[in-house]
Amino acid sequence: MTHVVTRSEHDLLGDRDVPVDAYWGVHTLRATENFPVTGTPISAYPHLIDALAAVKEAAALANEELGLLEPKKSAAIVEACREIRDGKLHDQFVVDVIQGGAGTSTNMNANEVVANRALELMGHEKGQYQFLHPNEDVNLGQSTNDVYPTAVKVATVFAVRGLLRSMAVLQDSFARKAVEFRNVLKMGRTQLQDAVPMTLGQEFSAYAVMIDEDRNRLDEAVQLIHEINLGATAIGTGLNAPVGYAESARRHLADITGLPLVTAANLVEATQDCGAFVQMSGVLKRIAVKLSKSCNDLRLLSSGPRAGLGEINLPPVQAGSSIMPGKVNPVIPEVVNQVAFEVIGNDVAITMAAEAGQLQLNAFEPIILHSLSESITHLQAACVTLAERCVDGITANTEALRASVENSIGLVTALNPHIGYTAATDIAKEALVTGRGVAELILEKGLLPAETLADLLRPEVVAGSASPLA
Amino acid sequence: MTHVVTRSEHDLLGDRDVPVDAYWGVHTLRATENFPVTGTPISAYPHLIDALAAVKEAAALANEELGLLEPKKSAAIVEACREIRDGKLHDQFVVDVIQGGAGTSTNMNANEVVANRALELMGHEKGQYQFLHPNEDVNLGQSTNDVYPTAVKVATVFAVRGLLRSMAVLQDSFARKAVEFRNVLKMGRTQLQDAVPMTLGQEFSAYAVMIDEDRNRLDEAVQLIHEINLGATAIGTGLNAPVGYAESARRHLADITGLPLVTAANLVEATQDCGAFVQMSGVLKRIAVKLSKSCNDLRLLSSGPRAGLGEINLPPVQAGSSIMPGKVNPVIPEVVNQVAFEVIGNDVAITMAAEAGQLQLNAFEPIILHSLSESITHLQAACVTLAERCVDGITANTEALRASVENSIGLVTALNPHIGYTAATDIAKEALVTGRGVAELILEKGLLPAETLADLLRPEVVAGSASPLA
Amino acid sequence: MTHVVTRSEHDLLGDRDVPVDAYWGVHTLRATENFPVTGTPISAYPHLIDALAAVKEAAALANEELGLLEPKKSAAIVEACREIRDGKLHDQFVVDVIQGGAGTSTNMNANEVVANRALELMGHEKGQYQFLHPNEDVNLGQSTNDVYPTAVKVATVFAVRGLLRSMAVLQDSFARKAVEFRNVLKMGRTQLQDAVPMTLGQEFSAYAVMIDEDRNRLDEAVQLIHEINLGATAIGTGLNAPVGYAESARRHLADITGLPLVTAANLVEATQDCGAFVQMSGVLKRIAVKLSKSCNDLRLLSSGPRAGLGEINLPPVQAGSSIMPGKVNPVIPEVVNQVAFEVIGNDVAITMAAEAGQLQLNAFEPIILHSLSESITHLQAACVTLAERCVDGITANTEALRASVENSIGLVTALNPHIGYTAATDIAKEALVTGRGVAELILEKGLLPAETLADLLRPEVVAGSASPLA
Amino acid sequence: MTHVVTRSEHDLLGDRDVPVDAYWGVHTLRATENFPVTGTPISAYPHLIDALAAVKEAAALANEELGLLEPKKSAAIVEACREIRDGKLHDQFVVDVIQGGAGTSTNMNANEVVANRALELMGHEKGQYQFLHPNEDVNLGQSTNDVYPTAVKVATVFAVRGLLRSMAVLQDSFARKAVEFRNVLKMGRTQLQDAVPMTLGQEFSAYAVMIDEDRNRLDEAVQLIHEINLGATAIGTGLNAPVGYAESARRHLADITGLPLVTAANLVEATQDCGAFVQMSGVLKRIAVKLSKSCNDLRLLSSGPRAGLGEINLPPVQAGSSIMPGKVNPVIPEVVNQVAFEVIGNDVAITMAAEAGQLQLNAFEPIILHSLSESITHLQAACVTLAERCVDGITANTEALRASVENSIGLVTALNPHIGYTAATDIAKEALVTGRGVAELILEKGLLPAETLADLLRPEVVAGSASPLA
Repeated sequence: MTHVVTRSEHDLLGDRDVPVDAYWGVHTLRATENFPVTGTPISAYPHLIDALAAVKEAAALANEELGLLEPKKSAAIVEACREIRDGKLHDQFVVDVIQGGAGTSTNMNANEVVANRALELMGHEKGQYQFLHPNEDVNLGQSTNDVYPTAVKVATVFAVRGLLRSMAVLQDSFARKAVEFRNVLKMGRTQLQDAVPMTLGQEFSAYAVMIDEDRNRLDEAVQLIHEINLGATAIGTGLNAPVGYAESARRHLADITGLPLVTAANLVEATQDCGAFVQMSGVLKRIAVKLSKSCNDLRLLSSGPRAGLGEINLPPVQAGSSIMPGKVNPVIPEVVNQVAFEVIGNDVAITMAAEAGQLQLNAFEPIILHSLSESITHLQAACVTLAERCVDGITANTEALRASVENSIGLVTALNPHIGYTAATDIAKEALVTGRGVAELILEKGLLPAETLADLLRPEVVAGSASPLA
Repeated sequence: MTHVVTRSEHDLLGDRDVPVDAYWGVHTLRATENFPVTGTPISAYPHLIDALAAVKEAAALANEELGLLEPKKSAAIVEACREIRDGKLHDQFVVDVIQGGAGTSTNMNANEVVANRALELMGHEKGQYQFLHPNEDVNLGQSTNDVYPTAVKVATVFAVRGLLRSMAVLQDSFARKAVEFRNVLKMGRTQLQDAVPMTLGQEFSAYAVMIDEDRNRLDEAVQLIHEINLGATAIGTGLNAPVGYAESARRHLADITGLPLVTAANLVEATQDCGAFVQMSGVLKRIAVKLSKSCNDLRLLSSGPRAGLGEINLPPVQAGSSIMPGKVNPVIPEVVNQVAFEVIGNDVAITMAAEAGQLQLNAFEPIILHSLSESITHLQAACVTLAERCVDGITANTEALRASVENSIGLVTALNPHIGYTAATDIAKEALVTGRGVAELILEKGLLPAETLADLLRPEVVAGSASPLA
Repeated sequence: MTHVVTRSEHDLLGDRDVPVDAYWGVHTLRATENFPVTGTPISAYPHLIDALAAVKEAAALANEELGLLEPKKSAAIVEACREIRDGKLHDQFVVDVIQGGAGTSTNMNANEVVANRALELMGHEKGQYQFLHPNEDVNLGQSTNDVYPTAVKVATVFAVRGLLRSMAVLQDSFARKAVEFRNVLKMGRTQLQDAVPMTLGQEFSAYAVMIDEDRNRLDEAVQLIHEINLGATAIGTGLNAPVGYAESARRHLADITGLPLVTAANLVEATQDCGAFVQMSGVLKRIAVKLSKSCNDLRLLSSGPRAGLGEINLPPVQAGSSIMPGKVNPVIPEVVNQVAFEVIGNDVAITMAAEAGQLQLNAFEPIILHSLSESITHLQAACVTLAERCVDGITANTEALRASVENSIGLVTALNPHIGYTAATDIAKEALVTGRGVAELILEKGLLPAETLADLLRPEVVAGSASPLA
Repeated sequence: MTHVVTRSEHDLLGDRDVPVDAYWGVHTLRATENFPVTGTPISAYPHLIDALAAVKEAAALANEELGLLEPKKSAAIVEACREIRDGKLHDQFVVDVIQGGAGTSTNMNANEVVANRALELMGHEKGQYQFLHPNEDVNLGQSTNDVYPTAVKVATVFAVRGLLRSMAVLQDSFARKAVEFRNVLKMGRTQLQDAVPMTLGQEFSAYAVMIDEDRNRLDEAVQLIHEINLGATAIGTGLNAPVGYAESARRHLADITGLPLVTAANLVEATQDCGAFVQMSGVLKRIAVKLSKSCNDLRLLSSGPRAGLGEINLPPVQAGSSIMPGKVNPVIPEVVNQVAFEVIGNDVAITMAAEAGQLQLNAFEPIILHSLSESITHLQAACVTLAERCVDGITANTEALRASVENSIGLVTALNPHIGYTAATDIAKEALVTGRGVAELILEKGLLPAETLADLLRPEVVAGSASPLA
């Protein structure tokens, strides 16, 4: 049996022992007991821990600047926060990520860890709150209701930057393939039916452009996340925050994080509103929809090897079957599809949480943080995995693709203006009945010289980027 | 300029003129002004109108039985209700289907139409409520909060019966194709990659079985809808409903509708709870998921005609393109997919409405009715359309399908036990390198006699329903 | 028995009789038979019909300009389109709004109606397509795959403008109440627990600001909808559309609609992508979330009359109960909540439809159009109804609200800096034990002079917009 | 720098080194590299690991029984599986829970761990697959496509049993409160407006009944999960599984798990269908909806302490605010609300994954497993936490509640039959104008003797479970 050495701490509900080595205190202890839901502590979101530390540091500097916090306390708090932002003490952030209380337990956990580390830096022992108090000093001029949303926003901005980089990697990967496949002729399809010719490069170019557009939307959405409500305190009236505090804290937080943060014009609104998170999640869902569609296409185009479309080959990354030798499956697009489904589900959870806010506060931001973080980080992993383990290695079955164009009835549509509608219809009918190829029939009947046909089937002509020579 | 002759009616808010010909009255008038949302009147849900009339008739009979309503009033109400159930006066149900007030306006609309028609049957004029009153007589012993949910449930039961019939039509259609295609050999696919042989009959049989299972689930879910709260009045305490009323009204309603209705054991719970609707919508969503999956498959299997899988042919039902001559698209599966997406979206709306109930009542049952009705009736149309305009006319490309099996690498897996693992692996490699067919190579190398190979490829052997002769 | 006089029309599948008076033809006829799903014809979306006519007019002008269409044909087409945009012939748009075929039937319906009306204007009879053909003339240079998305986008822009106006009405209504209630003191609440004082004006101001921000987001999202793919034809390669056509058609369409339309840079991408619709739906969902939250608040704040919060009174708009005399319910916020749930459900349907696109086309745009139109128009009705039938008539129970502040324990938080933490804590404890009011105790104990307390409770001080005099 | 001692393993793609101590092998290694998405290994789902071991054990016993596996191999496999089911080696299940490949990597991970542990038990070293092979022996007669779904089902059954127990705890907690509060009179509310009297016991009884009904639904849904497809192998045709294998494996698995498992009648359908999971998730969503509604009510009824409804008191479990002294928040219901939102979001993810299945397999079961497990275990934690940390400690403000009834206008509705409609209306009007209580006015005017009024307000009379004495 292990004997845990403890110290005693006190709160509204009485005394409790906490392990003497713990930087967290009684509030954190109760929270861990109250919220045994996911088993995932907030330390699983390092961006959030760093952002909390940044907010606490900014608040201490603002309070010192306004003469409300002694310089030595402020210095200790700032030093503790910097250690956290350097990656230390993250393991002390132990409350469950899904928690009641609108993030109070997360804020309390941060106050306690910062206070106890600052106490040590001041030469005191953990728990000697008479020298520096989690609530009265570290949380001075703050409320969970402005600290938590602000920290979530800062954390989200950094997480989104990672996603943007990952999307750029995927976009480049598709774009390189678009160039590589620019001369690969293939049949375009609408409603899964053969339509008219195009190039495989055009197909991959579309995937690249989709991601590019999504990156622009994500970039717009993240701008909205730069608006914070620090200084709002409990409900946005700024009660107990002195004049000048909101602006000073914002300025320091902007300096610390390097982000162009702005304070919301209406703090009452900003404190209760989750609109920016709903918007962000909506854009993540849009990204998920496109990614999923692109992966559906990749799986379809690489179906086979014999009884499928067989237009492209995905690089094999693992054996595909425990029973069928040699089978290789499109596992990378499949995992991306699943991330997309998760993101779309998370959007519904976020929507419900946002709608459930009441009066001056939304108590459900923890699930918003959780779902949003999951969506962002999983999409980030999905994009880069898709690029590096799949798209980069895709090859095309060029000859079979060209043959499918020459063999296709849809070619008639393309040649319509050149051989006339009546001849085109006749050729189409004959091809259907005989099963023969359209190109073959056209040449056989002398409807076009071989060189003209070849000219009309030049990839750049098919792609619409060049005119036929004739 | 038209001159509308009016009569004056009175309510809590004052006097209003209503058209003299209208069977509805002042309460309905105000509701039409208050809820100008969808433009769709409740008359668009004939099952609901019939169910409301059935409830009003049952209540009148119970009230008469308990000595609370004069026989001549009861007789007139009953007669008016029967006319409605015969399809008359449906156009008088004019309030918008999405409405505030937990269905009060729908109930009031019914009270007014029944009262005014009953007044006429008694020899009075519409609006002479001193002889028979919408609230005091037609609504006697009732509350919107028991009438509306009860009517929605009765309406839902009848709507679901229609859906069950439509699903049976589709199941039969798939089952007939399963028989028709029982000898059509084809490659089965997992993860869109060639796997092992099967029959097209097995593939269609799976669609039939899915629907059969879904019908069972739907049948279970609709049983829960037979539990009603008539007699609960405002909040389930039965206030103002005399002893014996709930049971008498239930009995009469069961007689009128022919449904084995039961009264909920706990009426307080039953009055606030929408669980049975959430369950029903969940099952409809399940049906939608399966239907959509089946339609995705049909579209994929019929992709082509040249550059697709081309395994089956859907019957053409309209020209497919305004630009590509001869193109025929899978428009019927496509419309079914869209109904499925709608049903899945409706499930979210119903979920949110159910979650939003507060304390003793859920005020949002009108959107539940609306979404549920839409899901049921659209699925009903989708199933029968899919059966009659698509599945019934599907044909198979039998020869190409058999060739794809003989040509497939996946055939090796099936022949593994018969030629040995080493030979199988060698054949697979050679087939991959040369592009030649597996069956061809096996025969060429004398690994199996032709008759044995033919035996192993008999459809019933492939399907697993018969053992090889050897 | 009625005898319908018919004319015979021909398509890919054979001959069919259509009513001689019908402006629509054989393609439309088959579509009405194939898609008997909702019973709602596309004429229910007048913005769409007008937009289709605008696209057809623009295409005719472009074709004439490029010398591809005789001026007399073009003139007749243009005249027919203008009649449609004047509201004529809308009843001829009869295909069901949920349809397979990626909108082909909608496009065909438009081609046929325009052609037949143009034929009449040219002095011919309906059906004499040898003089002007639905496909070869009206649809010249077009494909459903560029016409339909373009028309949906133009229709959506106009629909969104209506919503923006309606949101502005609601924002103004909330903003006027914010001014009216600027001096009404009340307790702010977090997590439904008494927090600190604020003004009712601040509370209503937050609702106004939310809508303002949502209008900005909607305005951004609608900009994306101005990007069209007219000229892309079947898959974005512009096949069969002559050089110059895309730009000419865009220019004419911009002139006709007055919208600053732009042609997508990558037409292959634009033809398959539904991102702009997903984004739009995401923003509509955001609006729905906020509206629903605001309505939840209005219903909560007006709960009572005796056993609720009773802070505000919603204007009565109809009798609330069929059984409880004098009961008035918050029916307007309730209907708005339900629209919000519908919009959130529609977003899921749109998401699924967008994700289901395959290769060069999304075949499921009809359900996207349907769901998006429903969301926009229902939100438009909801906003203006909420403003005019509810918010405009809200009154405050000023005295009771002020008393609740003076009586509240939360007042201690506000007075903390003025009476000291120890005294504050003592007062809070005494108030809790005795049930007495905080203001009363402070005055009784002489902790603050009456005028200082009054100064600290001045609405502008509480709201944080003025400093205390002391 | 640490030096990891390795062994070399080989697969389709070549050779790779794995740590010599690892029980997993090359297939697992590649999977961990391919799916770096969530960072959560499948060991986080112990029910799944146990279920996989049970399936492997059952298969080994069946294979031995059929003479396909040497007894000494079988014995070693069985022993290894039992160790796993005893909780050993769980840390060797390292592949990410969200993975492509339809669960292949999970199955391979299990095959490798079982094989390597069995090798040790046989006296060999890990990696000496010539003596016992992960695929050829451990996976004999199996495919991922029957093993994985079967294991997910067994795991789900055990997880659901835990949830059922947790729901029973919560139901009992509510039921005890229903008894405790059976004599506490209060106003019932509809649409948040005062309606008619009831007891607080009735209110809590409704919560208990809701959970009871949901438990019944969950019990029904879990029955469907007992249908497995073991023996189906790749696509349901049973290819390569000998006659008798499916039945033998099922029997052994039933013995091992103690579950009444049945083999699906149509294995092709069972292998591609996720209907039972969609149904299960739909029921979990129903549970979430009810739980969330109940928690919304608890938060509303306990709002205050002064400016809220203040009907009940939730036990304080932690300090509520970092800024407002003495504030206690409803943190337990709040965390339950958030779990509910998560479950509802997960249902959408599961729905999309199920819909995305194609042809003979659904490749997206890993996300279904992940979402379903999360929903079940989080709901389990939420129910027991709600019971033990909230509901058990709820107290009622009995006196205030009774006063609210006597003071309420709604009381008139209840007394209507006893004092007559005219007198009732007059009293209601006077109460509204003067602000006085209805009971008080009735006694003052002598409309009822005090003892009669008291009789009519007896809780059992109000609750509808007893008749008035008079």
